[in-house]
Amino acid sequence: MITALRALEPHELQDFTEEVKSEVILRVKEKIPHLESSLAVAELTVALHYVLNTPEDVLIWDVGHQGYIHKAITGRMKSLNHQRTPGGISGFLKRDESPFDFFGAGHASTSISALAGVCMADAIKKHKRHRIAVVGDGSLTGGQTFEALNHLGTIDTDALVILNDNDGSIDQTIGVLHNYQNYQSYFKSLGWEYHRCEEGNDVTILVAQLQQALTLGGKRVIHVKTTRPDLSPPKSYKPGTTFQWWAAEEMGLILAANPEIQILSSAMFAGSGFAPLRVKHPQQLHDTGINEPHTVTAAAGIAAAGGKAWVHIYSTFLQRAMDQVIHDIALQELPVIFLVDRAGFVGSDGPTHHGVFDLGFLLDIPNVTVWNPMDGSELQAMLRKASEIQPELRGPLFIRYPKARTSCDSPVDFMEYRFLKKGHSNTLLLSSGVLSSFAKEEAMDHAHLGQVKPLPADVKRMLGQYQTIVILEESMGTGGLSGAVAMEIAHSDLDIKLVVRKINDVFTEHGSRHELLKATGLLP
Amino acid sequence: MITALRALEPHELQDFTEEVKSEVILRVKEKIPHLESSLAVAELTVALHYVLNTPEDVLIWDVGHQGYIHKAITGRMKSLNHQRTPGGISGFLKRDESPFDFFGAGHASTSISALAGVCMADAIKKHKRHRIAVVGDGSLTGGQTFEALNHLGTIDTDALVILNDNDGSIDQTIGVLHNYQNYQSYFKSLGWEYHRCEEGNDVTILVAQLQQALTLGGKRVIHVKTTRPDLSPPKSYKPGTTFQWWAAEEMGLILAANPEIQILSSAMFAGSGFAPLRVKHPQQLHDTGINEPHTVTAAAGIAAAGGKAWVHIYSTFLQRAMDQVIHDIALQELPVIFLVDRAGFVGSDGPTHHGVFDLGFLLDIPNVTVWNPMDGSELQAMLRKASEIQPELRGPLFIRYPKARTSCDSPVDFMEYRFLKKGHSNTLLLSSGVLSSFAKEEAMDHAHLGQVKPLPADVKRMLGQYQTIVILEESMGTGGLSGAVAMEIAHSDLDIKLVVRKINDVFTEHGSRHELLKATGLLP
Repeated sequence: MITALRALEPHELQDFTEEVKSEVILRVKEKIPHLESSLAVAELTVALHYVLNTPEDVLIWDVGHQGYIHKAITGRMKSLNHQRTPGGISGFLKRDESPFDFFGAGHASTSISALAGVCMADAIKKHKRHRIAVVGDGSLTGGQTFEALNHLGTIDTDALVILNDNDGSIDQTIGVLHNYQNYQSYFKSLGWEYHRCEEGNDVTILVAQLQQALTLGGKRVIHVKTTRPDLSPPKSYKPGTTFQWWAAEEMGLILAANPEIQILSSAMFAGSGFAPLRVKHPQQLHDTGINEPHTVTAAAGIAAAGGKAWVHIYSTFLQRAMDQVIHDIALQELPVIFLVDRAGFVGSDGPTHHGVFDLGFLLDIPNVTVWNPMDGSELQAMLRKASEIQPELRGPLFIRYPKARTSCDSPVDFMEYRFLKKGHSNTLLLSSGVLSSFAKEEAMDHAHLGQVKPLPADVKRMLGQYQTIVILEESMGTGGLSGAVAMEIAHSDLDIKLVVRKINDVFTEHGSRHELLKATGLLP
Repeated sequence: MITALRALEPHELQDFTEEVKSEVILRVKEKIPHLESSLAVAELTVALHYVLNTPEDVLIWDVGHQGYIHKAITGRMKSLNHQRTPGGISGFLKRDESPFDFFGAGHASTSISALAGVCMADAIKKHKRHRIAVVGDGSLTGGQTFEALNHLGTIDTDALVILNDNDGSIDQTIGVLHNYQNYQSYFKSLGWEYHRCEEGNDVTILVAQLQQALTLGGKRVIHVKTTRPDLSPPKSYKPGTTFQWWAAEEMGLILAANPEIQILSSAMFAGSGFAPLRVKHPQQLHDTGINEPHTVTAAAGIAAAGGKAWVHIYSTFLQRAMDQVIHDIALQELPVIFLVDRAGFVGSDGPTHHGVFDLGFLLDIPNVTVWNPMDGSELQAMLRKASEIQPELRGPLFIRYPKARTSCDSPVDFMEYRFLKKGHSNTLLLSSGVLSSFAKEEAMDHAHLGQVKPLPADVKRMLGQYQTIVILEESMGTGGLSGAVAMEIAHSDLDIKLVVRKINDVFTEHGSRHELLKATGLLP
């Protein structure tokens, strides 16, 4: 298709774009998270592949949300039918999917850094080619883009950044950079030439402007104004069926009763069912932009000033603020509560987004408390308990829950652990989180750990009563719950056989949670 | 002293400042890392405490390097004699040391985020007071400061940021923001009023400007130009005695032989003995500024473009780029080599800087290789080996070494593991890194693991030959080497008693490496 595209005359490009758009909409009709973001850059995508000699010229996208049209015209139109399903293509850019996907992009704000790397590699090789990054206005709020612009500003190189400004990222874009004049001042202060294109959905104008920009040398930004179509919203879960829904319900009560609580989120409220809360409690819910390090330290600042700070974040993005959790919160023993959404396999978003690393690193940090509820009832009990004990906390508390369905039956009280089955077995199954509600091992006793760190004091006693401990854990790596139990045994005189079922040391592709849990052996 | 300060007339402040400076220099004469940074802001520090009602008014410093004068005039003058020694005060800002240390600051670029948190907490409580962050021009290159400025720019609040511009941070400051006009454009584009003060070492002028600025509302930046005195450099290690020195020596040879290798560092070359290499190979060593996320992704970009990227970074700052290691390098199977300096206890810098977390999280990431040399000879062998195998790597390789003395005797070849002692014991001591060279256990066999991940295939066989495995590990947490061996045993039929000696689950204060290793039981 790309050869056909390049054979066209400029006046034929708009029809071509419309056809591509229609076909893409048709093919991904049922599953359309973020499809609007891609459709907004349909003309830009066509124009870029028309004027560039990709993949020899380097085109780097920021976040995969912009990538559906790109995928369609680089040989993956038919594959879109099976995007985000097992064996199908990814919803994001992915290097091993196509040479046209020069750099993977699941998380935001990385593209200009990658562009800097290409400039540096090409300088050593004296390799001349066009190098372009396309970054959305939402991604631009991530500090890494500033770091990259500021660094590239000092390098004598040719690089083009296209700011795709559709005035809104996943959530409402936050920040002051919301008009041409501010953007212009901003980029110029960092050493970049600034151009703008008001007609970002007119492919002919785009082609002309891009062709002109490519003839200029140096570091240039083209600020392209695009418009997102309004598609019908993607299918969402029914009320009262997910961890997200139960979390939002309980938080509504907690916020109303505790007007000093402030919840910060780096653009993740909408994806978690917290949008209505934001409308109802505008003084208490703050969307800070795509900027996890800032958000976590700002929460520490609230706590240092005697406020009640909560952070709402996805597990995969907590990876971006590990140092801030350690340095600003845990070390300073500040009472910040984290709602860690999408802990565990995340489903169709795939390997860039699985929340499988946070448990491992959180358990390694002193002064940290970690809770994993098994269902909606326990989640709500934990939220209530957290709001009660926040003043006494000496460090962060993390309440982790998956993107999964769950029920919420009769209210329960918070308990550090609970026996789900206790007979006379000499083998104990120890699990945590939602896996506790699925696990069925006929021949074993079964305890659910709501609190994974600190390990409940009773766990030591519990271990002494069994010959074999089987750990079931939706997490990666050498540590986590299994590592914590292994260390407990190592520091004791106990002679216990430890058996561990957790996620293998490989990146896991996309698929439904159920499929992935079965494939990794966590579900029978 | 602060009461005495506030009783002075403005014209008496310069004498006061000179006396404080002289006494501080006298007291910290022998150990003066970064003392110049504090002396450069002596007048600013005096002026701030003079016009503000600290600690009720909030004063947040960015990085502790600016904090010695602040400590002196807030009741810790005498304690400076014992700064950075066991039982003495910290070299950085620290909340539990004084109510005047409102927010801890060991790592850079966090102050404006903390300031944002204070503004948010005060808004809820309707608390009126002055709120100020002082940030150096070097710290400003960290993207978190941009995130914070951009977010605060949208909030209706009173906040003052003082940019302390002494034209140079730890290492040479990088970036384009190097003149008044660019700084002005930059701050204004993010919604901040901009003022400047050329006479940043004139306390009377500073007082007048600060008093005026405090009467204005809104978000304001004062860009203060300060001058650093030139003190004699701190005592450094003798050539040929440290891991750092041997690393730099070998890298000199490798860089000369491999002109395509590029080493990126976020302002850490100078602290690691790499400054001479930078002079000799300016095309191959790039100081990118204080911006670890960008640096790591830029290295991924170099690799994606077919270049040979190395990253030079301290363990404690690698925490800031964990997501970039996972998302941009490991997941994409890109061959980037990391020189992880200051792995393990870091000595007098203390808990903000100990490199005790990286091993735990690196071992949890798929496609990662981790090497820990026991001495200078093995470090050099690993660097040579790394440069040879870089094209075949399918993911990042981390070579971790401590801030410690070591020797470099006859050259050795790279080996995944090595028996240091082998008799007929049924107990095996398994250690890695420099601890292998100290460990002496009469009754045990002893193997050193140069490669911790992937665990050498022979380790499985090795485990089967012993009843007890003792792990000795300079790292925190539930995972790491001990977790990896525990998982290996859990996935086998072996009946082995595991004994683990590693760092307890608490933050460790400052002290010499030797003292800290003894105190934590890692050295006898």
